[in-house]
Amino acid sequence: MNKIKIGVIGAGRIGKIHADNLRRIPQAEIIAVSDLYGGEELQAWAEQRGIPTVTQDSEAILSNPEIDAVFICSSTDTHVDLIKRAAARGKHIFCEKPVSMDIRQTEEAVEAVRKAGVQLQIGFNRRFDHNFKRLREHVQAGEIGSPHLIKITSRDPEPPPEAYLKVSGGIFMDMMIHDFDMARFLCGSEVDEVFAQGSVLVDPVFAQYGDVDTAIVTLRFANGALGLIDGSRRAVYGYDQRAEVFGSKGSVSVANDFPSTAVITTGNGTRSEKPLHFFLERYQGAYIDETEQFIDCLLHGKSVPVNGNDGRQAERIAWAAKLSHQERRIVKLSELKEFE
Amino acid sequence: MNKIKIGVIGAGRIGKIHADNLRRIPQAEIIAVSDLYGGEELQAWAEQRGIPTVTQDSEAILSNPEIDAVFICSSTDTHVDLIKRAAARGKHIFCEKPVSMDIRQTEEAVEAVRKAGVQLQIGFNRRFDHNFKRLREHVQAGEIGSPHLIKITSRDPEPPPEAYLKVSGGIFMDMMIHDFDMARFLCGSEVDEVFAQGSVLVDPVFAQYGDVDTAIVTLRFANGALGLIDGSRRAVYGYDQRAEVFGSKGSVSVANDFPSTAVITTGNGTRSEKPLHFFLERYQGAYIDETEQFIDCLLHGKSVPVNGNDGRQAERIAWAAKLSHQERRIVKLSELKEFE
Amino acid sequence: MNKIKIGVIGAGRIGKIHADNLRRIPQAEIIAVSDLYGGEELQAWAEQRGIPTVTQDSEAILSNPEIDAVFICSSTDTHVDLIKRAAARGKHIFCEKPVSMDIRQTEEAVEAVRKAGVQLQIGFNRRFDHNFKRLREHVQAGEIGSPHLIKITSRDPEPPPEAYLKVSGGIFMDMMIHDFDMARFLCGSEVDEVFAQGSVLVDPVFAQYGDVDTAIVTLRFANGALGLIDGSRRAVYGYDQRAEVFGSKGSVSVANDFPSTAVITTGNGTRSEKPLHFFLERYQGAYIDETEQFIDCLLHGKSVPVNGNDGRQAERIAWAAKLSHQERRIVKLSELKEFE
Amino acid sequence: MNKIKIGVIGAGRIGKIHADNLRRIPQAEIIAVSDLYGGEELQAWAEQRGIPTVTQDSEAILSNPEIDAVFICSSTDTHVDLIKRAAARGKHIFCEKPVSMDIRQTEEAVEAVRKAGVQLQIGFNRRFDHNFKRLREHVQAGEIGSPHLIKITSRDPEPPPEAYLKVSGGIFMDMMIHDFDMARFLCGSEVDEVFAQGSVLVDPVFAQYGDVDTAIVTLRFANGALGLIDGSRRAVYGYDQRAEVFGSKGSVSVANDFPSTAVITTGNGTRSEKPLHFFLERYQGAYIDETEQFIDCLLHGKSVPVNGNDGRQAERIAWAAKLSHQERRIVKLSELKEFE
Repeated sequence: MNKIKIGVIGAGRIGKIHADNLRRIPQAEIIAVSDLYGGEELQAWAEQRGIPTVTQDSEAILSNPEIDAVFICSSTDTHVDLIKRAAARGKHIFCEKPVSMDIRQTEEAVEAVRKAGVQLQIGFNRRFDHNFKRLREHVQAGEIGSPHLIKITSRDPEPPPEAYLKVSGGIFMDMMIHDFDMARFLCGSEVDEVFAQGSVLVDPVFAQYGDVDTAIVTLRFANGALGLIDGSRRAVYGYDQRAEVFGSKGSVSVANDFPSTAVITTGNGTRSEKPLHFFLERYQGAYIDETEQFIDCLLHGKSVPVNGNDGRQAERIAWAAKLSHQERRIVKLSELKEFE
Repeated sequence: MNKIKIGVIGAGRIGKIHADNLRRIPQAEIIAVSDLYGGEELQAWAEQRGIPTVTQDSEAILSNPEIDAVFICSSTDTHVDLIKRAAARGKHIFCEKPVSMDIRQTEEAVEAVRKAGVQLQIGFNRRFDHNFKRLREHVQAGEIGSPHLIKITSRDPEPPPEAYLKVSGGIFMDMMIHDFDMARFLCGSEVDEVFAQGSVLVDPVFAQYGDVDTAIVTLRFANGALGLIDGSRRAVYGYDQRAEVFGSKGSVSVANDFPSTAVITTGNGTRSEKPLHFFLERYQGAYIDETEQFIDCLLHGKSVPVNGNDGRQAERIAWAAKLSHQERRIVKLSELKEFE
Repeated sequence: MNKIKIGVIGAGRIGKIHADNLRRIPQAEIIAVSDLYGGEELQAWAEQRGIPTVTQDSEAILSNPEIDAVFICSSTDTHVDLIKRAAARGKHIFCEKPVSMDIRQTEEAVEAVRKAGVQLQIGFNRRFDHNFKRLREHVQAGEIGSPHLIKITSRDPEPPPEAYLKVSGGIFMDMMIHDFDMARFLCGSEVDEVFAQGSVLVDPVFAQYGDVDTAIVTLRFANGALGLIDGSRRAVYGYDQRAEVFGSKGSVSVANDFPSTAVITTGNGTRSEKPLHFFLERYQGAYIDETEQFIDCLLHGKSVPVNGNDGRQAERIAWAAKLSHQERRIVKLSELKEFE
Repeated sequence: MNKIKIGVIGAGRIGKIHADNLRRIPQAEIIAVSDLYGGEELQAWAEQRGIPTVTQDSEAILSNPEIDAVFICSSTDTHVDLIKRAAARGKHIFCEKPVSMDIRQTEEAVEAVRKAGVQLQIGFNRRFDHNFKRLREHVQAGEIGSPHLIKITSRDPEPPPEAYLKVSGGIFMDMMIHDFDMARFLCGSEVDEVFAQGSVLVDPVFAQYGDVDTAIVTLRFANGALGLIDGSRRAVYGYDQRAEVFGSKGSVSVANDFPSTAVITTGNGTRSEKPLHFFLERYQGAYIDETEQFIDCLLHGKSVPVNGNDGRQAERIAWAAKLSHQERRIVKLSELKEFE
């Protein structure tokens, strides 16, 4: 196998980003794309890129024997079914997060992948960000000794549209799931306990859906380390994604990226820019890297860097956070066994 | 009254710092100092500074009709008694934190001060730090809108000696009480709920005293804002005291101070200094300012900037944090009423 | 014209970079590439990219009627002849800096372009860098008032190979010509006087070629502003490219870019990364932008953003700097008229 | 000698600053102060500080046998005479910069001091600044290898009053003399050649006095290193004093100090403070340190850290800069011999 043939299922914003990133990789070739709502616009988009097949039916992709791997970029409620069907056809899978909003279903999908012996990579793109990657390298190299505190800031520039809120799964599952994965990634230890609190401070519409727009989650890891995550649906100054790991030998942190390094000082003070505005700018490089690594792993028979278990663990933490917030108490991850 | 005559009770490290700062103020004059363990060394120290009276008996200070105000810098277990006695003699009081480790006793001391009509300033020095003061000014000026998240980092460079651990009152009362005061100071709203978790990661000796060396505390304020505080007894790189307030219109944060701005870049990377090592360096200016403001308030009949109620509220939060940590649950400050 | 057909002349490092950047632009198509030393390796490289024609003879490109524009990326001594021949065939031209090392020849090339009515863009890539571009925008927007001082730091990570030194034209023409263009770009005024001093501090080999490896150049602009440029052939920590413009209302500066924002603080101090190592990393985005703008200007009949006169003026300053250094005196740009 | 008795000559702004700093030192005692214009205000000032003698006649101080050392803080034109007379009486001397505006006279004063065997410290306060001191320590420790480039930024927040301009000696002697001393201090090598250029960009009044308000000076040091200094009489954002030393192994730089570390990010960008506004704030600690070191050297018979030769060398560079600016040419310091 020296060229991976790919089908993309779901050609919304993120599906198209993955497609364009795949086109930069000489060893990858997109041969089909499917989208339930794909019409003329998608047809034109595919033609411009030399993608021969455009369909509304994902089955046309899953049953195509030429296809080695699929990118599942459709809505979350379709993931589990698509993963199972793709795995059954022996196709490798890249799936956007979360796998599902039901721990048992995610477990089934991961199990199906395991049985089929295919690879499943979950789209936790932040692991590939130049800042977070370096942060983790420092932690793993022992630069700050044993981790004691993991701190993550995670703030979106603006809330999603109300229509999306209804199906988002809530702040913990939809937004902070990235941070739960990041916490595991940075700490190098599994989460034992979760405590969450939230407030509706940005927009009362969140309360209508039983959701919150501002939340803090604390974690206790198996190794005794503690985690603190703060999340907000609206940071007016743009995307705010930072982290710090504090340990026995020191501390390492990463800050936001900015459009330029320009600093102006006048009689009114010192000014510089806002952070990069949203995930498309901030994680542009990370999206490219996660795609390249996926293809590279398939080509060389290596294990993918973020697998089904990573997807599952982050969902379990999100689930625990939701429960903790509802019941106003510490939730141990071991409690979730009953749901699995 | 155009010169305040002062007696200093307790001439340990912090008592001597206050004394030297008072000596810089032309309108203040220290006329007596007492210390239970004061011997020749203290005598010499006082002579060098032209302080006429040195005694081992605090009563000699409290009963001196010439003295307008006392600085209570003795051990925490003596504070309540000294405050009551000083108030009864009509003396204004500057008292180090905490007032006591018992909410009822603190309440009694504050009440005695109220009845006597004297002023009581609590030694929450960080409120006078150039960084935290500016941070609060920005919040109060509405620069970041309504506060949504208050984040405080509070790490000491090294744990206190074991002998002190036994009587320290634990990490929440001894160390993080400063942060609880800071949270109120920055948010401009009272705390409703407290949740705390801790670990023993720095030194097992903490476990022997039922204490922890690493802790996180989350707060819910009356205005809905959420707070996150992380504390450690040992940051090997020095004193780490930072804060951020995030709100509806933006975010404001303050960082540590450093010995110099020097930055070296070589083939091995970029290097700069560690933060100022301990509170004596970091808060040197803050100690001077709190003393000057205390004297200024007495001279001009103004209310002191940090009063008995501030001391009491911070202790209530510390108490709630301790209870939360023990009982592994959210503690509402209203629950503490039964102890008061 | 809705697609620009391009021939690339000279397929060394920079020629290949331009080619790969052109391939990202849907409205550009490379249809031929020539290189004097192009063999099998170049053939393979072109095939992989779907470039149909590979030749050793630039004439095959210049005489190809299908080609709308050429990228001249061959050695400096070939530029003037190629520009003249390309202009004579009515082809638009993108030419790497400098046009030549002889002011009269450059003048002739610029004149040939003018007469032919084609466009000539000079490869002053730094104008397109996100930092320098923003710096200039601030200056042009009047944020810092009238410019008084223009300061530019320009240091390479390591000297070029000795073979190149012989033909480089010296530090002023080869390396600092970028800074002379930047000075004009930032100040918005032409240079009147130049003063230069140099030392051989990095490697004695520079002295053998009558060159220096460390140099400072001061400029006086027509508007009275003063400029200071410092250059070095070896900054062991990587590429160091910064600038500041100070004026009547304030100052604006830009710093280097770094691989990540990671900062580690330990008992030994605070550490972060070195700047991006060389121009390929630092100016990756700038190379893409200058290419896109060139194509965009051709497509829409707009004037290119860096034209032949910009190339000529930077060369005149370089020439003056060289003369100043040799004769140890201020050189007025008006003196150069006799050479033109 | 365990207490140094001091007379202060000249009780303007800087004289009073030195006096207040001396009062913090237990081993120093000011017993007399003289000022030509000293009236009631000075009398009151001295009384408040317990200084017994106030006089208008410097002779009363110079002839007082009790006095060990004098602080010469009167106008520049009185320095040489006062130094000679103080030296003749065997008194140690702290003298503000510059010693004089005439190289021969400064030479005579330094010679008189040498013959009398007393100590003379020049008020180059910046050497004692926490940033510049650390910068030099790094250079001396070899952290950046051999120095290649010394860069100094020196900008005042606002021009002096016109009355002062007439007698200031011009930008090179009055303001940039500090930078010339800093250049020697940082490089660890003497200056060989000076080149200066200036412009009148801030206020046309400077032209009336044959002065400039914006200047750049380049230096060539004996060790081959090159220096660049830029100076302005008005940086609207406050005092701007930075430096960088670049060498064979790297670069080290120091930045300005700020009132606080507060940073606000809103929808309009990121804001922080202006630098500390003027030398009184920025160099507060440096003034204290230079005074303490002077007293310490006298007490322990050590050589003062900035001596008459340092004063003389900086003046020679200033002189050369002035000449270079006037004659528009490189001036070698060796040329000045004829004036000495």
